[in-house]
This record gives sequence, structure tokens and C-alpha cells, in this order.
Amino acid sequence: KYSTGVRKVTLIPGHGIGPEITVAVQKIFEAAKVPIEWDEVDVTAVRGPDGKFGIPQRAIDSVNENKIGLKGPLMTPVGKGYRSLNLALRKEFDLYANVRPCKSLDGIKTLYDNVDVVTIRENTEGEYSGIEHEIVDGVVQSIKLITEEASKRVAEFAFQFARDNKRKKVTAVHKANIMRMSDGLFLRCCRDLATKYPDIKFEERYLDTVCLNMVQDPSKFDVLVMPNLYGDIMSDMCSGLVGGLGLTPSGNIGKNGALFESVHGTAPDIAGKDMANPTALLLSAIMMLRHLQLNEHADRVQNACYTVLAEGKSLTGDLGGTGKCSEYTHAIISKL
Amino acid sequence: KYSTGVRKVTLIPGHGIGPEITVAVQKIFEAAKVPIEWDEVDVTAVRGPDGKFGIPQRAIDSVNENKIGLKGPLMTPVGKGYRSLNLALRKEFDLYANVRPCKSLDGIKTLYDNVDVVTIRENTEGEYSGIEHEIVDGVVQSIKLITEEASKRVAEFAFQFARDNKRKKVTAVHKANIMRMSDGLFLRCCRDLATKYPDIKFEERYLDTVCLNMVQDPSKFDVLVMPNLYGDIMSDMCSGLVGGLGLTPSGNIGKNGALFESVHGTAPDIAGKDMANPTALLLSAIMMLRHLQLNEHADRVQNACYTVLAEGKSLTGDLGGTGKCSEYTHAIISKL
Ligand SMILES: CC(C)[C@H](C(=O)O)[C@@H](O)C(=O)O
Ligand SMILES: CC(C)[C@H](C(=O)O)[C@@H](O)C(=O)O
Repeated sequence: KYSTGVRKVTLIPGHGIGPEITVAVQKIFEAAKVPIEWDEVDVTAVRGPDGKFGIPQRAIDSVNENKIGLKGPLMTPVGKGYRSLNLALRKEFDLYANVRPCKSLDGIKTLYDNVDVVTIRENTEGEYSGIEHEIVDGVVQSIKLITEEASKRVAEFAFQFARDNKRKKVTAVHKANIMRMSDGLFLRCCRDLATKYPDIKFEERYLDTVCLNMVQDPSKFDVLVMPNLYGDIMSDMCSGLVGGLGLTPSGNIGKNGALFESVHGTAPDIAGKDMANPTALLLSAIMMLRHLQLNEHADRVQNACYTVLAEGKSLTGDLGGTGKCSEYTHAIISKL
Repeated sequence: KYSTGVRKVTLIPGHGIGPEITVAVQKIFEAAKVPIEWDEVDVTAVRGPDGKFGIPQRAIDSVNENKIGLKGPLMTPVGKGYRSLNLALRKEFDLYANVRPCKSLDGIKTLYDNVDVVTIRENTEGEYSGIEHEIVDGVVQSIKLITEEASKRVAEFAFQFARDNKRKKVTAVHKANIMRMSDGLFLRCCRDLATKYPDIKFEERYLDTVCLNMVQDPSKFDVLVMPNLYGDIMSDMCSGLVGGLGLTPSGNIGKNGALFESVHGTAPDIAGKDMANPTALLLSAIMMLRHLQLNEHADRVQNACYTVLAEGKSLTGDLGGTGKCSEYTHAIISKL
């Protein structure tokens, strides 16, 4: 699927702390001799010929060519006419599956110690259809769109992911007791796929029940697959169980490309101060390496990162340490 | 609003463990000399003249007359033509605000010790509109309906609740970054109301962020108000933080009536075995007493219940004890 030898990867440093955490990842990858050549692009919204703001053409071309990218946090300007650039990218490249693993990390103290779940989120439709109307004054409807096509492909992705990663179970998360037709369709697609993966256990659970069980005992879950909004919620919640968005990676996968990204914010208050935590972007980049089947490099960098976290020295302020972003970066490099 | 002297309350024991936990509450209230006369009704779905299943007329009449009710868990038969009776009741009586307090309880060990939040959920529309279509084969849309009227009244309810209960803050929970028009309308209504309650702090937060922050530090939150589905999720999640649905009460409040209910299931596997935990229904009944301004009775019963939980004796199996429902009930009565 990808050429061997040096891989070209689109790099979107993003805004706020984006550039500095991107440099951290680049330095670590360089030290680890990861065979990647970065094609750096800017995705600050530009006004197109139609007057609307969108992703610059140069960025689109780069991702189309490389079919893989790494992306820092993006700022979406507030106001009319702006839509989230994060969403625009998912849409532009039809990145239909969003994968967010959340795993307890040695050295990161939270209330939970045995979290190891992966949320797989439908990434193109559902509550994110963008279709809304004001029917009469004071009455608004938003349309949740569920298609068989999108549900099937994300369900298939989830089961295949489970098999490839030696996972045991896929839980479909839904509210088909309320949205009988839409979530019902999603659920039926999951059931269908389940029959094709007899080696993977399948269960279906209500979203509310999963939220309740997850905070009580995350070890009940393994891989979870669900419509767009539910994935947005569950992935953030699971991230909270293991330390937050500064520590959890994310990958958006499509048929013709994949974009890995840290999903935390741009943190403008600490931007440029060498205080940011690059872990989420680094772990996302490591997911990307596995996607490129550079598993040995992935393992090496991951072990170095986990070791530094476990030792608890040089950690950044958000992790309770006093280290700078650059010190943390060097600590990881020294473990390679 | 309610007559003084003996109050008549509609009692819906419900199915499964419903009858036995209802008897527990009745016994405790009797021992506490709570001035209530129960009007017991059955709400097992009956087929109406139109062939559809619905709530029996006798139950509707009783709630309409008494304007207040206590309800155990209901079983909704699976299959076409059945809609959740729980939802039917909320709709029938226009119970527009669902109030679910979650508070850490002495004697109930969870990972969290300082939870004290109240979720207030819009209870009549949103994702629960029931409007769905299959547009073409394999393409389904569900309509989320947000109206100014329903948003305003639940927002007002939340602020008034905060003021009446000496709470400090109301957080509006939304995804107006995605559903700009529908959640946007909900949010604007909350902002409007906030200006009328300058004594209550107001903040607005994304649903995903609230989920993340809630599992990391529930003390960040106080009263939360949100559209229907978000409330379904958040209330279950918060319930999980303090021990689960067996321990958390719920009240559905409307202009012309109020229905208090335990929101756990019917637990058919242990039904009739004197093993069920009546706490959630009891705490719901205590909420009801406060609604009826029977605060002294409420305090007395609540203290007895909290004392038994804190002492940790006679607790039911779901709480790690070996007590029967009847033993637990008598333990509470002995503390009155
Ligand atoms: C930034 C926002 C539009 C986005 C979402 O809602 O999907 C974010 O919360 C995420 O999870 O990636
Ligand atoms: C039983 C179900 C229809 C209901 C809901 O989704 O509202 C339940 O989860 C609740 O929270 O009361």
C-alpha cells in the first residue's frame, strides 16, 4: 500500500502550540532514524474563489499525493462562514474511521489503572451532517444522517482493527431504543459484520449504559464502535480516564488516506513558551508509523516515550512536572 | 400548590423488582408517618381502541388528578408498535425537566468521594422527537428538534432550581460548534436566562469536554442543564461516579405534575426474591417529599437511609452486602 524506503508524509504543524510540539516529534523521529520525509504545509483557512473559507489547495494537494499526514491542533476562527478545519479535513479526504486508543500509562496517576480501550468513531455523517433548518421562528431541526454504506465500512473497520490488533471484543454503542431507524440501521450493520468475524466477540450496549459502566469499570470494554457524536463523547471521556487529551492519540483513516492528529487545543496561553506537552502528537505519530507498517520504529519510539513518562522526570507542567517541552523531548531521545 | 394535610400520590409499582422496592418505600414512609395516601395503579401497556399500545386510562386519570406520582421500573415489551412507557409518561404529562442529583454517599466506596452534581435534562424533545425517515434504501434521517419554548422553560427551571437549592453555578452543556442552529438555540436560551439570575454563576461547555472533565474532577461542576440525549448520557455517567443507578434518584417535573422514579431496570433475574435494592426509589420518593414541601419528613427519612448506608450493615447484594431488601428496609425504619 505504501512504498518502502523513505516515506513522504504531509506535516501540518497547526496553530498555537502546534509548531513546537511538531518540532519535538520531528526531532525524536530524526534521532530514531525513522525513514520519513516531511512535506510541511499550512492549513490556515484561506478565502476561496467562492468567497468561502477553506483549506489551502497546496495542503490538499500534499495530502492527496502522500495519502498520509500528521497534524497538530488547528484554530477555527469564530464567526459566520467558518466551519471547523478539523472537520473539513476529515470530510475532504473521506476519513471515515476515527480511531482513538486510550491506555493507562505507567507514571501517569489517575483514578484508573487498567484502562485499555479503543473507540472507533464513524467520522463522516450522523449528527455531524451539518444539515439544519429553522422551520418556524423558534423551532429548529438538525438532521442526523445514518447510511448503510458509512455504517458498514466503519463496522468492518472496527472488526478488522480488532483482528489485526489481537483484540477480543467489539461493542457497538447505540441508542436504538430511541432512534430506532437511524441507530437501528447502524446497529444492524454492526450485527451483519459481526457474523463475518466469528473470532471477535460482539456485544451491543446503550450509550448511557456504556458511560455508566465505563466510569465504574473500564476493563469491561475493549474495542467500541459507534456513530459520530457518540464517538466524540466516548473518546474524550476515555481520554479523561487515562490523563486527558495531552496523552491520547488519534487517527482518521479513509480508503485513500489517513491523518493522525493530537486532539487537544491550541493552548494559546502557553504557545511559544516551550511549555507544551508533545505526547499526544508523538503517540499519534507512532500510530501513523504502525499504519505505515514501520512497526519496529514505532515500538522503539513508543518505549522511549513510555520510559520517560514512567520515570516521571522532565515531565511538562500539565503532567505535574517542571520540564520544558525541549527537555522532555531530549529525555525521550536519550532513551532511544 | 398542593393541599396540606394528607397528600394523595399516584403509585406505579412497575414490573420486575418494582413491587418489592415499592413496598419497601411504603413501609418506611408509614413508619415515618409521612402524610401520604397512595393511589396504586398499573401501567402495563394496554391496547387502545386505535389498536396501539399505551398507558391504561385509569393510570392517566390518577396522575391527572393527583398531579404527583412515584414510579418503579417499567418493562417495555420488545417489538413493533411498542414505545417506551417511561417516555410515554414523560410525554403524556409534559414533564419537561428531568432532575437527577448525584452525590457521593458515605459508606458507598467508589473512585470518587466528592461528587455533588445535579443534571437537569430537557425531557420532551431533542433527539427524542421520534421523527425518523428512510429517505432512500439505506439512508435514514432522525430529526433532533429544539424549540425556544422548551429550551427556555428547562433553562429557567435549572436556574430556579439552583437558586432554590442554594447552588452556585449552572453549566449549559452543548455541541453548538457542530449543531450550530439547534444547540445554538438551546444555548442562547440558557444565556438569556442567565442574565435573569445574576446570583448564579453561568458557564457553557462542550459536551465532550464536560465528559472529560467530569471523570477527572467532578467537583468542577454543580448544576448542569442540557438537551435531552446529552442529559441521558451525563446523568448515567454521573450516577456511575457515585455507585450506579441503584443509588440515584430522578424526578420528572412539569407545569401540571411531577413523577419521581428510580431509573434502574426491572432486574427480572432477582425479582420476587427479596434481594432488590430499594435505595434509588426511596431517594426518588424523598425528592418527591421535598417537591411537596414535606421537608422535615424528607430529612428524617433521608438521614435514616444515609445512616444505614454509612454503617454498611444490612446492605443488599449489589452494594456488596448480604442483606435482603426487607432487612435493609427494617434497618432504615429502626433509624427513624
Ligand atoms: C473540534 C471539534 C469539531 C471536534 C469534534 O467535535 O469532532 C473535536 O471535539 C474532536 O473530537 O475531534
Ligand atoms: C429507558 C430509556 C428510554 C430512558 C432514556 O433513554 O431516556 C432511560 O435511559 C432514562 O435515562 O430514563
